[in-house]
Amino acid sequence: MTVSAEWSELPPELNMKTTRNPKELQAVLEQARRKGQSVGFVPTMGALHEGHLSLVRASNRENDITLVSIFVNPTQFGANEDYAKYPRVLAEDMKKLRTVKVDHLFCPSAVAMYPEGYATFVEVRPRLSNILCGKFRPGHFRGVATVVAKLLNIVGVCRLYLGAKDFQQATVIRQLVHDLNMQVQVRVMPTVREKDGLAMSSRNRYLSPDERRRAIAISRVLFALKRDLLQKKGSLVSLKARALGELRKNVDRIQYLEIVDPGTLESVKKRQKNMASLTACFVGKTRLIDNVIIRA
Amino acid sequence: MTVSAEWSELPPELNMKTTRNPKELQAVLEQARRKGQSVGFVPTMGALHEGHLSLVRASNRENDITLVSIFVNPTQFGANEDYAKYPRVLAEDMKKLRTVKVDHLFCPSAVAMYPEGYATFVEVRPRLSNILCGKFRPGHFRGVATVVAKLLNIVGVCRLYLGAKDFQQATVIRQLVHDLNMQVQVRVMPTVREKDGLAMSSRNRYLSPDERRRAIAISRVLFALKRDLLQKKGSLVSLKARALGELRKNVDRIQYLEIVDPGTLESVKKRQKNMASLTACFVGKTRLIDNVIIRA
Repeated sequence: MTVSAEWSELPPELNMKTTRNPKELQAVLEQARRKGQSVGFVPTMGALHEGHLSLVRASNRENDITLVSIFVNPTQFGANEDYAKYPRVLAEDMKKLRTVKVDHLFCPSAVAMYPEGYATFVEVRPRLSNILCGKFRPGHFRGVATVVAKLLNIVGVCRLYLGAKDFQQATVIRQLVHDLNMQVQVRVMPTVREKDGLAMSSRNRYLSPDERRRAIAISRVLFALKRDLLQKKGSLVSLKARALGELRKNVDRIQYLEIVDPGTLESVKKRQKNMASLTACFVGKTRLIDNVIIRA
Repeated sequence: MTVSAEWSELPPELNMKTTRNPKELQAVLEQARRKGQSVGFVPTMGALHEGHLSLVRASNRENDITLVSIFVNPTQFGANEDYAKYPRVLAEDMKKLRTVKVDHLFCPSAVAMYPEGYATFVEVRPRLSNILCGKFRPGHFRGVATVVAKLLNIVGVCRLYLGAKDFQQATVIRQLVHDLNMQVQVRVMPTVREKDGLAMSSRNRYLSPDERRRAIAISRVLFALKRDLLQKKGSLVSLKARALGELRKNVDRIQYLEIVDPGTLESVKKRQKNMASLTACFVGKTRLIDNVIIRA
């Protein structure tokens, strides 16, 4: 996909260059950096929503150039997960991206990212990747770490924008960037929510009207837990049990609801200054995650 | 370690800047690249010999700036291997490097490379890392891939110089660089040998005079095997058996002697155009490796 004649007649802020070729993107960004331009990078799997757009806006505030990638990464999906049916709506996504300033859009093919004979994987382990979501999605964070390492090597020196909704993912990527000495600044931006509190997610479009209504419980329970913890309305154990009970009434299956240290992601045994409550649960067949930071 | 007053009075080609700090090196190289200078990188574990110096000379021919790293990487040594006693002779190494042009010397500490809480590993698997040396040194190539990924992220866009003696290592690193989209050109330079044919290696200094004499058999057997293969003096199986017999007479333990495809490192079942014979064996307590490329 290259810039069509039609596009190049659009005003510059609406005129994003699109490439599917990693080497081509490397060359373009290298040139930009040589001119002293800073690069902000927003990696996505498409099916964009306001959360993604908020990352683009954050990037625009801090960088000369903003790059968005759309790539549904096969290596981070389990065998029984939704890789095949994950929403792929490029035209719709590009329309949304034209409402904000995006300089480059990178949409590689799966075969460009993982050619025949591909053999290299990056793992952030064992503590970080095998708990919480990692426990229920074996290999998921290895896939995430691998594709992010690849994307960051293609993009080069940059600021990287991630959403706080994927809290564990952001923690894994922060560690990856630090451990592998990448010249990347990681910026984690606040979760964007619907008016009723539901965290925005590409997977929300899977929900039936009934499921959508029940899904509100997730954020409601997490915010109630935060309030109860801050107001010391009971022990950690009892408040967590109450939250689980309330959540169970509304969703179909709970994978976990944990109160953790936001740095290490390890379960908190007693109240501490900074905590995060994280949950993953199914509403119908749709797996949703959410989290709330708790600062005493 | 920073440049001493004494050094800065040396002529420029003898005046290499030394740093132990990854971020400092990143900044220096970034500045060089901004001036349009190309960077050649020679990663080593020190105990330098003519093989390493040949890599430095190759780098000097193709790049504006040459960087040498000296880092005995703990993650690539097994529990019962020679990490603790691996020769660390920095003063001697620096003396040798002053006989060639080296612009930067990078000698990070183990804790700078693997700080408390370090958790990220890079694996090139499973075929490439679990055969040949990988079979006898579990985790070795994971350690190599991890430290090379780190070093390359510190160094950035560069040409990377590796010795052909570590044939499997070069193959693993070539795959790593390709798979992770690193902006690095890998150059594998010919093995440098002693006059009697022994491949130069930092570990040769472990050899007693008797062991040193017996070690000659390794290259002699590989070159004889090459000649016999090219002259079709017998079947692949019989020639390999003869080579193994001859090697066994001289060394104390053979881990493997294989005839492989130089691209995939898979064992060759019948004669083909390009092959490589690789061996790893012990002379006394010292593990030595060598290989010879066979082009019909």
